[in-house]
Amino acid sequence: MKVAVAGVGAMGTRFALKLKQAGNNVTVVDGWQERVASLKKDGLRANLDGQEVTVKVPAYGQWEVPRDHHFDLVLFFTKSMQLEQMVRDMLPAFDDDTLALCLMNGIGHEKTLEKYLPKERVFLGNTMWTAQMTRPDHVLLEDDGTCELSNVEPGEPQRSQAKELVKVFKAAGLKPRLLDDPRYSVFRKGCVNGTLNTLCTLFECNLTEYSKTSHAHEMVVKIVKEFAAVGAKEGVNLDVAEVVDHVEASYDVIGAHYPSMYQDLVKNNRRTEIDYMNGYVSTHGKKYGVATPYCDLLTAEVHTKEDLQGAQ
Amino acid sequence: MKVAVAGVGAMGTRFALKLKQAGNNVTVVDGWQERVASLKKDGLRANLDGQEVTVKVPAYGQWEVPRDHHFDLVLFFTKSMQLEQMVRDMLPAFDDDTLALCLMNGIGHEKTLEKYLPKERVFLGNTMWTAQMTRPDHVLLEDDGTCELSNVEPGEPQRSQAKELVKVFKAAGLKPRLLDDPRYSVFRKGCVNGTLNTLCTLFECNLTEYSKTSHAHEMVVKIVKEFAAVGAKEGVNLDVAEVVDHVEASYDVIGAHYPSMYQDLVKNNRRTEIDYMNGYVSTHGKKYGVATPYCDLLTAEVHTKEDLQGAQ
Repeated sequence: MKVAVAGVGAMGTRFALKLKQAGNNVTVVDGWQERVASLKKDGLRANLDGQEVTVKVPAYGQWEVPRDHHFDLVLFFTKSMQLEQMVRDMLPAFDDDTLALCLMNGIGHEKTLEKYLPKERVFLGNTMWTAQMTRPDHVLLEDDGTCELSNVEPGEPQRSQAKELVKVFKAAGLKPRLLDDPRYSVFRKGCVNGTLNTLCTLFECNLTEYSKTSHAHEMVVKIVKEFAAVGAKEGVNLDVAEVVDHVEASYDVIGAHYPSMYQDLVKNNRRTEIDYMNGYVSTHGKKYGVATPYCDLLTAEVHTKEDLQGAQ
Repeated sequence: MKVAVAGVGAMGTRFALKLKQAGNNVTVVDGWQERVASLKKDGLRANLDGQEVTVKVPAYGQWEVPRDHHFDLVLFFTKSMQLEQMVRDMLPAFDDDTLALCLMNGIGHEKTLEKYLPKERVFLGNTMWTAQMTRPDHVLLEDDGTCELSNVEPGEPQRSQAKELVKVFKAAGLKPRLLDDPRYSVFRKGCVNGTLNTLCTLFECNLTEYSKTSHAHEMVVKIVKEFAAVGAKEGVNLDVAEVVDHVEASYDVIGAHYPSMYQDLVKNNRRTEIDYMNGYVSTHGKKYGVATPYCDLLTAEVHTKEDLQGAQ
């Protein structure tokens, strides 16, 4: 399959690398000049499960997206706030049958894609893989993970195309699962982010450290309930107990991990994706008349931390 | 006036020092062994408005409170969670006419005093002075401040006694004000603590730094509203707009100050008084059926930070 990975930070690198290693034709695009320079010079460099790997792939800046390539799939892995610009910059690379897949953290990205692309070609999901940028030219890929995806618009040929994507990702060892309802999955993953990403960032700790604190469970439950209340207004009916279990199962699987929001704000002093996580619940709660005080306060708190640090 | 200051941390030292300098007979009592040793050896040592001062006063450990002294007033300045034990340990020093005054941070301390002393001899208020322990044997006293107090039980002779205390404190330059309703004042001060102490501790910043963040006002308003809702159930009717102005006026007056909770947790890794601030609102909100999600979450967050740091 001919794949463009649009956004090759930590997670984009994992997917680009695994897809390339499995024999797909992979091109990468990024918006960060220093990163693009390193990609062009050295390719994708990573520590993958303990081994240093370097994989050469065609690399482009977001400002020089090639118009003469045909891609079967564009896989978006930017930061949430950069998605819309990336979609716009990638449009010249889309043919009539190019599919768009977004597995990024955050709720509501399918709406951004649907502004520019027919809904039938939009695919959505999420990933529980971890990834960490150690330098502009190097990514750390450890821990086990999975991913999930589905067509956004029901029917054919979208369903078969989703199955085909699952097949390709499976062959690449990315442990994909075909979803029935991608928005359920995105909200469910949103609960993981809206609890663990947000709290570990505020407290500057990893998952295991957070899990051992005396109010950990209570806060997770309260936050998940707010995601569920807003989800219900959008036709997504989360099973709160199941989702809480899912969130807390992370403690064992990736306990030593510092979530991406922590990496953004604490490590790299970059503004976070909070507006697409708890912030989504907060703004949409207001829209639907649903009280979401925990998400309101957590969103304000993360922005306060950004302000105090002068995050960029 | 013959005064025992029970608890001579940072703020107790300010009051003991000022009262002593104004010619009162001052004795100090503390529960921290290292502090007591230094008080016995060197007296009260402080930097008071830029000048180093040392004032000798009789000093006792909480475990050796003298039974043969008559005190006109016992002024309590412990940490909230240490108050009850201090009251019990100070009981031998109380005669039938000894008054008890509590100007400590936190809501509900009068109930602790009333468990052991007749309500007519309990006086309550708060202070907006700042103080900071720099070492076990030294306190930094800068900034301008005020204090407020009143009898808890209406009527005579309590009202006259409250006026007498105001007179003594005024002569000592402590800028006291006689209150009509001490609980209004305690709740109002509770709003200062429940916003600025709590948030500056979570974000590890001072008041000025916090004041410049984009969500500062919004968070203050939400928290004050919860204090007001719980206060109303206890017959204390806060004027939310006035209290928010009062909280935010601190930015100019003591902006460079790191609140006492910050000093406790961030600087000295000690557990905080959160349960007597936002935690009071949270537990009493539950009791009265009033939703207090901001105070619930903030209380949980401060405890999480204590847990993560292994605060003692």
